[in-house]
Amino acid sequence: LRAAVALTVVLAGLALGATLARADAPGHGDTSGAATAHGAASSNSQGATSGNSHGAQTPTSGATREFVTAHRREILDEFMHLLAIPNIASDRANMKRNADAILDMMQRRGLSPQLLTSRRDPDAPPIVFGEWKVRNAKRTIVLYAHYDGQPVNPADWATPPFTPTLRTAPLEKGGTVIATGAPSATDTRNAADAATDAETRLYARGSGDDKLGVMVILSAIDALRATHRTPTDNIKVVFEGEEEAGSPHLANLLTEHRALLDSQLWVVCDGPVHPTGRKMVVYGARGDMNVDLTVYGPVRSLHSGHYGNWAQNPALNLARLLASMKDDTGQVLIPGWYDDVAPLGDLEQRAIKEAAAYDDAIKQELGIAKTESDRSLPAATTVPSLNINGMRSANVGDQASNVIPDSATAVLDLRLVLGNEPLRQYDKLLNFVRSKGYYVIDRAPTMRERLEAPLIANMKLRPGVYAAARTPMDNPLAHAIAAAIRTSSDQSVIELPTSGGSLPLSIIEKALGTPSIDVPTANYDDNQHAPNENLRLGNLWEGINTYTALMMHR
Amino acid sequence: LRAAVALTVVLAGLALGATLARADAPGHGDTSGAATAHGAASSNSQGATSGNSHGAQTPTSGATREFVTAHRREILDEFMHLLAIPNIASDRANMKRNADAILDMMQRRGLSPQLLTSRRDPDAPPIVFGEWKVRNAKRTIVLYAHYDGQPVNPADWATPPFTPTLRTAPLEKGGTVIATGAPSATDTRNAADAATDAETRLYARGSGDDKLGVMVILSAIDALRATHRTPTDNIKVVFEGEEEAGSPHLANLLTEHRALLDSQLWVVCDGPVHPTGRKMVVYGARGDMNVDLTVYGPVRSLHSGHYGNWAQNPALNLARLLASMKDDTGQVLIPGWYDDVAPLGDLEQRAIKEAAAYDDAIKQELGIAKTESDRSLPAATTVPSLNINGMRSANVGDQASNVIPDSATAVLDLRLVLGNEPLRQYDKLLNFVRSKGYYVIDRAPTMRERLEAPLIANMKLRPGVYAAARTPMDNPLAHAIAAAIRTSSDQSVIELPTSGGSLPLSIIEKALGTPSIDVPTANYDDNQHAPNENLRLGNLWEGINTYTALMMHR
Repeated sequence: LRAAVALTVVLAGLALGATLARADAPGHGDTSGAATAHGAASSNSQGATSGNSHGAQTPTSGATREFVTAHRREILDEFMHLLAIPNIASDRANMKRNADAILDMMQRRGLSPQLLTSRRDPDAPPIVFGEWKVRNAKRTIVLYAHYDGQPVNPADWATPPFTPTLRTAPLEKGGTVIATGAPSATDTRNAADAATDAETRLYARGSGDDKLGVMVILSAIDALRATHRTPTDNIKVVFEGEEEAGSPHLANLLTEHRALLDSQLWVVCDGPVHPTGRKMVVYGARGDMNVDLTVYGPVRSLHSGHYGNWAQNPALNLARLLASMKDDTGQVLIPGWYDDVAPLGDLEQRAIKEAAAYDDAIKQELGIAKTESDRSLPAATTVPSLNINGMRSANVGDQASNVIPDSATAVLDLRLVLGNEPLRQYDKLLNFVRSKGYYVIDRAPTMRERLEAPLIANMKLRPGVYAAARTPMDNPLAHAIAAAIRTSSDQSVIELPTSGGSLPLSIIEKALGTPSIDVPTANYDDNQHAPNENLRLGNLWEGINTYTALMMHR
Repeated sequence: LRAAVALTVVLAGLALGATLARADAPGHGDTSGAATAHGAASSNSQGATSGNSHGAQTPTSGATREFVTAHRREILDEFMHLLAIPNIASDRANMKRNADAILDMMQRRGLSPQLLTSRRDPDAPPIVFGEWKVRNAKRTIVLYAHYDGQPVNPADWATPPFTPTLRTAPLEKGGTVIATGAPSATDTRNAADAATDAETRLYARGSGDDKLGVMVILSAIDALRATHRTPTDNIKVVFEGEEEAGSPHLANLLTEHRALLDSQLWVVCDGPVHPTGRKMVVYGARGDMNVDLTVYGPVRSLHSGHYGNWAQNPALNLARLLASMKDDTGQVLIPGWYDDVAPLGDLEQRAIKEAAAYDDAIKQELGIAKTESDRSLPAATTVPSLNINGMRSANVGDQASNVIPDSATAVLDLRLVLGNEPLRQYDKLLNFVRSKGYYVIDRAPTMRERLEAPLIANMKLRPGVYAAARTPMDNPLAHAIAAAIRTSSDQSVIELPTSGGSLPLSIIEKALGTPSIDVPTANYDDNQHAPNENLRLGNLWEGINTYTALMMHR
């Protein structure tokens, strides 16, 4: 019944789409040209010339591409509605609204959705699970995305993070607002025109990371259904709600629903494609952990004149401590930091060397004259990192005042690679801080402690620790999927042994024993994790095409 | 006419005060005991036993003390109304309200007030000027305070900075709220009881720095008038409105109104008394300048996983730059930093040695196990300082996200001593930053600059630069005033050649050629310049007594 209803919806959409496609003929040409100008993998032309009949089971089916092109406006409309629901994992009321909205979206597509919760914390954002059972399929793949986003400081955003906003171009390139708010509330003609331009940017938290994944996967399923195609494998869909919070319940969720989630490979739809616009297949991800580090000054802020150069300044002490952690070639000076790193195989080393060719273009794009170390970007992602996410002591700008602050705080981000055991890596940092003379506690100091210890640090490991994971580049199912993606693009596809970013791949591997790969779709300049996160619409359309192709692998 | 009106007001207040004084007899005893427990100079007992008749012209007149004790509630009421008007110098509309309110207060006291503006910027916060002409007086002293306060970040305050709030004790010692808001809107019985307790704290921006000075000076004039006393010198009153903004118009204001401001000495009522509660006479002040320093990373925030340990992190670069400015004995490493310092005389050196005796008590109070250098606190204030007022890069806490920030900013505070020429000191800092490889500009970099310079700093000197000033400790009028203050206290008065903080003394000296001293009244733990600024009420009452005494010097 659910499937029949969904089919009706899709067919109704198709009829509307056909009308739009005629009206939009010039727009279609624009899209293709713009994508090429951006240097992105635009295979619209290839799709248009491949001439596959609607029934043919090939990855680069023209029909599914045409479906996407014809339905850009509806897809965008549905996406903007989803983006208007705030999605910070700690905001449980709104996360429930997100889960319910996605459940509805999957219901409409006949995916027999259900919300998977964990007994350990039934109120935590659930997994939204759905399935497309394929008759005679020998294997099952899980398509994964997450619907929660990174925390936001609305003051840092040009437009509110949960008011999806279309711009003509990226903000930093002078993009102007086309439409603001849920599309039904806006000038729909403008929004409709904007939807057909691949260079239009959609600003909202989650537009790139990772409600985009939800939209890409569900739209790819639409495209296959509408063109009467059947995936090669059984398809299961898993949308997580706590990835940016470090997936604190994912291990339990997977273990508790192990039978339901049985599969041979997870394909994760998260993260950006290559800065050149080329598609990517990534066989692993770094692990991640965050540390809150606060050092203390006097028991209260002091007048910087009356006490300046007498009382110790915690901002200076924090600066000194952070500066001591790395040398000026980017090498982390914490003893043993690079021990434990698992060596790379030949295939992996070759892939890294090939991908390094794009470093100069990326530096050009990001305004980087000199990188932190001599490592290439793909090589840098194969070693454990130490990064400062943020730093604060008292105030700057208009709110600055003449004080010696009472404390100074940094948030550190430690990326891990295969071989790193998270807690062992944390202990190296802890011992290093102690070696610099700090009395380390995990709370504010008492007056007695202040009077006894010249240097005091409050250090806490945040919950949500990922280890690294890597699937060998010669895994057969992964290899078949990579081949399908290559045929969907007229540019070379970049394959990497690991992403620099983190994904809960190690949690999946540990809980279910199933390997994973990442097939990202976002534009690389999406301000992922930062203010003004945005999506280049062309990446949504081409992302859908990537996923129709991979579901149809041979 | 004005004087007659004012007298009526004062006499009406006196009658009310006499009633209150009777009702408050036990409260008076409490006050005295509490002040002693705090280690403050409580000379209530001395005042009560000195037994001067109302007419006697002595500095420690019991009658003026009794007036203050009897009128604590009215004084507090008037003060809380004044504190409820926001007083950030850049907020011109509210600064106008402050100036008008103070003009009214002086009008009521018969001080023939007027607003002094500068032709250069007639809309800048004016000086509120008034005068008490004393027949046959041979000299004139100017009593100075400022009615503007340091900028605030209301989020950092326990109660809003412009909602004056009474607490039973300091916030950090568990003080609970007695009354909030303008006193007329509160439980006046509670507020009235609170007013009689010297340990009650009044929280508001300006409660200590420096609307307190306005209130102390005007209340001391009330006390003299009501008890039919005449000051030794002509009294001129100057209340400035831009001190915390660096007194950008003070030099012009003084020059333009030079004739009106003719005097032999300025007595500045600003800053805290000694941490032990002892009264102070301070013969100078350090100069001050602030520098905004921003270093840049990639052109936009980057995902800390995808780019971590490849793109340079500006927070780390700022930490490294700041750390390089001082060694771990607190010595500034910027070449020439301590050159140009004028040597101290014998009187001054002896005063510093004596005042250093209190350092251990201050460390105990502030929770300091180890100071930045081996210098005593009074010695540290005689050398130029380099302090970090605030530091920020991206976000910490709940708003932190996994980014490589695009920039990192610090605000530096440079205190200057006699001999330092401000711009020369700034140049030493500028040259140091350049010597660390930075390309230094005074704006955000262009893309071209980013691609050319590996390290870029944006450095700007804020407007409002003070040089240091020092009046010799043997100046005769200053000496007479110090003697009068000594007789007003039953504890030793601490005399210092310079304050660690800054006052516009050098501007006064340069514009008018008149020397200055500072006679502070605030409690040392008033969170001056910080969130939760507060006044210990006992310091208001005793401050008024200090100023009646000094106006009656022999």
